[in-house]
Amino acid sequence: MKTIKIGIAGLGRLGLIHADNIYKMKHVELTAISNLDESVNKQVQEKYQVPYAYTTYEEMIENDELDAVCIVTPSGFHTSHIQLALEHDLHVFCEKPIGLEVEEIKQTCKVIDKSDKVFHLGFMRRYDQDYLYVKEMIDRGDIGDISIIRSYGIDPIAGLESFVNFAKKSPSGGIYLDMSVHDIDVIRWFTNSEVTKVWATGNNKVFPELNELNEVEMSTATMQLENNTTAFLVAGRTASHGYHVETEVIGTKGMVRIAATPDKNKVTVFNDQGVVRPTSQSFPERFREAYVDELKDFVRCIRGQTKPEVTAVDGLRSTEVAIACQRSLEKNKLVEIHYEG
Amino acid sequence: MKTIKIGIAGLGRLGLIHADNIYKMKHVELTAISNLDESVNKQVQEKYQVPYAYTTYEEMIENDELDAVCIVTPSGFHTSHIQLALEHDLHVFCEKPIGLEVEEIKQTCKVIDKSDKVFHLGFMRRYDQDYLYVKEMIDRGDIGDISIIRSYGIDPIAGLESFVNFAKKSPSGGIYLDMSVHDIDVIRWFTNSEVTKVWATGNNKVFPELNELNEVEMSTATMQLENNTTAFLVAGRTASHGYHVETEVIGTKGMVRIAATPDKNKVTVFNDQGVVRPTSQSFPERFREAYVDELKDFVRCIRGQTKPEVTAVDGLRSTEVAIACQRSLEKNKLVEIHYEG
Amino acid sequence: MKTIKIGIAGLGRLGLIHADNIYKMKHVELTAISNLDESVNKQVQEKYQVPYAYTTYEEMIENDELDAVCIVTPSGFHTSHIQLALEHDLHVFCEKPIGLEVEEIKQTCKVIDKSDKVFHLGFMRRYDQDYLYVKEMIDRGDIGDISIIRSYGIDPIAGLESFVNFAKKSPSGGIYLDMSVHDIDVIRWFTNSEVTKVWATGNNKVFPELNELNEVEMSTATMQLENNTTAFLVAGRTASHGYHVETEVIGTKGMVRIAATPDKNKVTVFNDQGVVRPTSQSFPERFREAYVDELKDFVRCIRGQTKPEVTAVDGLRSTEVAIACQRSLEKNKLVEIHYEG
Amino acid sequence: MKTIKIGIAGLGRLGLIHADNIYKMKHVELTAISNLDESVNKQVQEKYQVPYAYTTYEEMIENDELDAVCIVTPSGFHTSHIQLALEHDLHVFCEKPIGLEVEEIKQTCKVIDKSDKVFHLGFMRRYDQDYLYVKEMIDRGDIGDISIIRSYGIDPIAGLESFVNFAKKSPSGGIYLDMSVHDIDVIRWFTNSEVTKVWATGNNKVFPELNELNEVEMSTATMQLENNTTAFLVAGRTASHGYHVETEVIGTKGMVRIAATPDKNKVTVFNDQGVVRPTSQSFPERFREAYVDELKDFVRCIRGQTKPEVTAVDGLRSTEVAIACQRSLEKNKLVEIHYEG
Repeated sequence: MKTIKIGIAGLGRLGLIHADNIYKMKHVELTAISNLDESVNKQVQEKYQVPYAYTTYEEMIENDELDAVCIVTPSGFHTSHIQLALEHDLHVFCEKPIGLEVEEIKQTCKVIDKSDKVFHLGFMRRYDQDYLYVKEMIDRGDIGDISIIRSYGIDPIAGLESFVNFAKKSPSGGIYLDMSVHDIDVIRWFTNSEVTKVWATGNNKVFPELNELNEVEMSTATMQLENNTTAFLVAGRTASHGYHVETEVIGTKGMVRIAATPDKNKVTVFNDQGVVRPTSQSFPERFREAYVDELKDFVRCIRGQTKPEVTAVDGLRSTEVAIACQRSLEKNKLVEIHYEG
Repeated sequence: MKTIKIGIAGLGRLGLIHADNIYKMKHVELTAISNLDESVNKQVQEKYQVPYAYTTYEEMIENDELDAVCIVTPSGFHTSHIQLALEHDLHVFCEKPIGLEVEEIKQTCKVIDKSDKVFHLGFMRRYDQDYLYVKEMIDRGDIGDISIIRSYGIDPIAGLESFVNFAKKSPSGGIYLDMSVHDIDVIRWFTNSEVTKVWATGNNKVFPELNELNEVEMSTATMQLENNTTAFLVAGRTASHGYHVETEVIGTKGMVRIAATPDKNKVTVFNDQGVVRPTSQSFPERFREAYVDELKDFVRCIRGQTKPEVTAVDGLRSTEVAIACQRSLEKNKLVEIHYEG
Repeated sequence: MKTIKIGIAGLGRLGLIHADNIYKMKHVELTAISNLDESVNKQVQEKYQVPYAYTTYEEMIENDELDAVCIVTPSGFHTSHIQLALEHDLHVFCEKPIGLEVEEIKQTCKVIDKSDKVFHLGFMRRYDQDYLYVKEMIDRGDIGDISIIRSYGIDPIAGLESFVNFAKKSPSGGIYLDMSVHDIDVIRWFTNSEVTKVWATGNNKVFPELNELNEVEMSTATMQLENNTTAFLVAGRTASHGYHVETEVIGTKGMVRIAATPDKNKVTVFNDQGVVRPTSQSFPERFREAYVDELKDFVRCIRGQTKPEVTAVDGLRSTEVAIACQRSLEKNKLVEIHYEG
Repeated sequence: MKTIKIGIAGLGRLGLIHADNIYKMKHVELTAISNLDESVNKQVQEKYQVPYAYTTYEEMIENDELDAVCIVTPSGFHTSHIQLALEHDLHVFCEKPIGLEVEEIKQTCKVIDKSDKVFHLGFMRRYDQDYLYVKEMIDRGDIGDISIIRSYGIDPIAGLESFVNFAKKSPSGGIYLDMSVHDIDVIRWFTNSEVTKVWATGNNKVFPELNELNEVEMSTATMQLENNTTAFLVAGRTASHGYHVETEVIGTKGMVRIAATPDKNKVTVFNDQGVVRPTSQSFPERFREAYVDELKDFVRCIRGQTKPEVTAVDGLRSTEVAIACQRSLEKNKLVEIHYEG
């Protein structure tokens, strides 16, 4: 079996996870890395015996050995990095979001559309066994027509300080682009319908200083879909109990909840606090296997064994909805979304 | 200890529950009943040895032996029945809502205000041990400032047919007045803040015929409060698993859920379905003790031992919010609420 | 309806609970109390307007107004108090155990048998809604033939000190007679079969000083029944999370657990400990309603509306098994139990 | 990094799982298979591009390319296959149990002891994240001294027929050797203490025909340990809800349960059954990752990066205890266990 050679761009927290997952795959080589910080590069190169290391993305994609790139650079670079890779005839795995600006994304979609290379977008929840189990229930009709979806993504408060530092340096695009795109994608995936109206709210009751950064620590978005489903999202950064990702689907035949409690494992502790279930503390912990499985799927796509589940248009739509949420939050008004053909 | 003599008006489903609870109280007598259906009256009179039975409310309140009335008549009669009772110097326990029209309620509030008799409104969740436990947590500061409240009230689908028949005969006032007032009251109680904006949505995916009755089987309402808390309500009539009443409070220090699963009891069944928790099937089952406790509190108020927890203004505010939700649903727009003095 | 007049003997922790429950029943009067401590008597008499108070049981049962007695005196007095009451033509409600010595109990059974008065034994779990729900499942055949039963009764460690003080003064009869009789009764009730062999173990890892008192803080008993069911009990006094009473039934068609977690209420807290369910802290809290319901049943029996669910023989059998467990623990051997006709 | 070449012996259900896991490991090659059924061999060889296939174990271990073997043959062959492999200077991973006869195992232990090759025994629970989490809690002292351990292993009833067919052909060694060795190993691992006395019971209420095969469908074993801990095991074959593996540890400072409900995933379904958690249906599903992790550990041991967690003596002890349970079951007596040096 031919070895697929992958170069990774960006070695932040998530980039290191992807690097590790690529390295561990059989018949796959982590052939190159590109990242600004040379000391990180050196460590990664040694740990995984990576043949090539670069400080810029542009250098890396000139490497002729590469079959594919995995883009984990800051969101603002995604569209240009995708286009560059496709121009160099490389398969592309790109972390969400596909971009921060609608026009750029639309243009990138066209480039992707014309290319015969694989384009794979990092909506890892689509590879999570729990989400897949519910998607199958929905598709089988087990829960009937969907009336309401509720989806939460709340980061642990332990990570808030590092977020604030991060947000001071580079704009996150707002909490909806940064976090809710995952929930928005799940809503579209589960319902096969598009969001048409949103009303978003938020506040900074723990960290009022976030007001100055134009960020919110806790936010909601209520959405109406074409098929008259209502969706309610919570995105936040101040969960005291861990990393709370939860999705609920209320259908005409039943209701399901994914991760109603963000259990870390199957252990229950009975101590002086009561009956305690330990919780997941981070997205790498919660979605560890989903991150592995999405890259495995990317490699299967490269080998021509399957097609990507998520398309560039999925990335575009999620971004459009997230941007509408952000606008609604800022104006405290209902915002309608109009999609072009 | 002086025996308190109570007359009950209305012997529908909930009226019968109140009658039973009044009958079982020590030092309290179920002295009179008023209800249109004489055959029901006869049964109740025998079962509880009730001295007096009437077919009209007006007759009953002329009975000089009575100390108090318990009003469980259809919602449209509440305001006039309250006023009549107070004019006859009777203490009043009235089921929610206090009325269907804002102006009528306001006028009734004035009458209540002038009277020195006890007025007690049937928001039984305020007497439920689970809700009280969380109210105490909130007041102690255990969960910090409240950012988001979510509250569900979904009736079992088994009761839908009887609701449709009921709705054909007399208007329910819409799902928000009929069901959500409980959730609205909880939100106001937990936050000490008022709702200022609402957006409501709903659909009839199981029973499209409800469209003609101007009813919705499944609805949501998103609300913004003065203190910048966001509340999200679901009210529905099609739960396949039972009677789903659930409330969640997300605060700056933690999160609590009341009845995240509507467990019927402490039994877990492991069978060919998986691990199954049986569920409560109706409000009388779920709130059995709360219904007892609210009447006990009413009697304590009559005896001068305590003051009513809920005021007429609480009833007015919940109705105003419910009406705003209904208007938002009908227009599919954000609706602002302006309260007078 | 004739008022039933009840005298209560013993105003310890559980006696006070029974007194309160008797007082609150309609058409029932708490007519007399007998208790050594006159200051307690005075308080109870005032609180419940009790007509008569005595410092000895013997005086109380001479009161001709009484219809019945509720015996909550120390276990060692039960058999003589039962017999005295029946001789005075009084209905008897007696707390478990029926006695500490098999011969005394057998003799008491004969007296009970000859009397036409109601004899009601305080196995309150038979009136608990959760246990009743499972009993019905078993009787309906929902879980098939029973293979294994597991039943835990573990007191909170917070109560250990007061237990030690209590045990120093008067023998508890050992943990099996003191605590496991409830579990033994449940096993007999659920299976309709008798225990034939037991092996019991125990230790004092927290409070080694209990060794001197011939008590164990944590103990087990494995039992074989006539119908080849195996039962496993845990009785203990050192639960850090509260009052842990749990029963499991493994049948050929399924498995059920009653109170797998000893939830205090329906509240779930998400805080820096993880996902926490508060727990019941004491038997009065856990079995509050069962204590009410067993006395209501006693009154119904007195009125001739029903028959006692639990017989004196049930009390005898539970005691015989508990004594066998205690002997097995002391000898660390399998002990066989032989019942007489 | 040198590629480790492994041959697998036995391609039954579990053998196929190990083959798949070996194949997927990086820097490891599934170099050979030995298995009686040539049609299975052909499929496996193709699926994983296995260089060599044999119908006998003896042939396979002559292959000079091999570094190690993975023994998944019937339990009765384990001791001789282990010895043969070590004689051929191969590292050995062997599925539990290490053998069926104590004397054979002891002799094998001596051979293992003398060899400098890695010997790794397949107690996969020691690699399960939930069991590891609790082991760490115990070692940190979070739950104090252990008083009681309870451990269940109950297979789904769906597999009973295939078990009966299997048992008719070759003796399983009884339910304790076949299933409870895992629980026995966990008890020894968690407590660092040895079992000294056992009493075992069992029955065949669903499949009385198992009596003829000298098998039991549902069994218990109560055990006393040197350090005065009591352990209670259930092993069975008739769970209607799935594959129920659960372990509880009651310590002086708290209590923990691993997999109190055998949840398949994080999904909760609310339907006409109530609130339902789907369950794991088989050991490959429940312990999927543990099976991967134990082989990864085996490879790390071969590379000299770590030492095996489980020793041959652990295998011997578990077998001795399981055999004592079986004898106790057959005689319905307490059995004492005496270990040599």
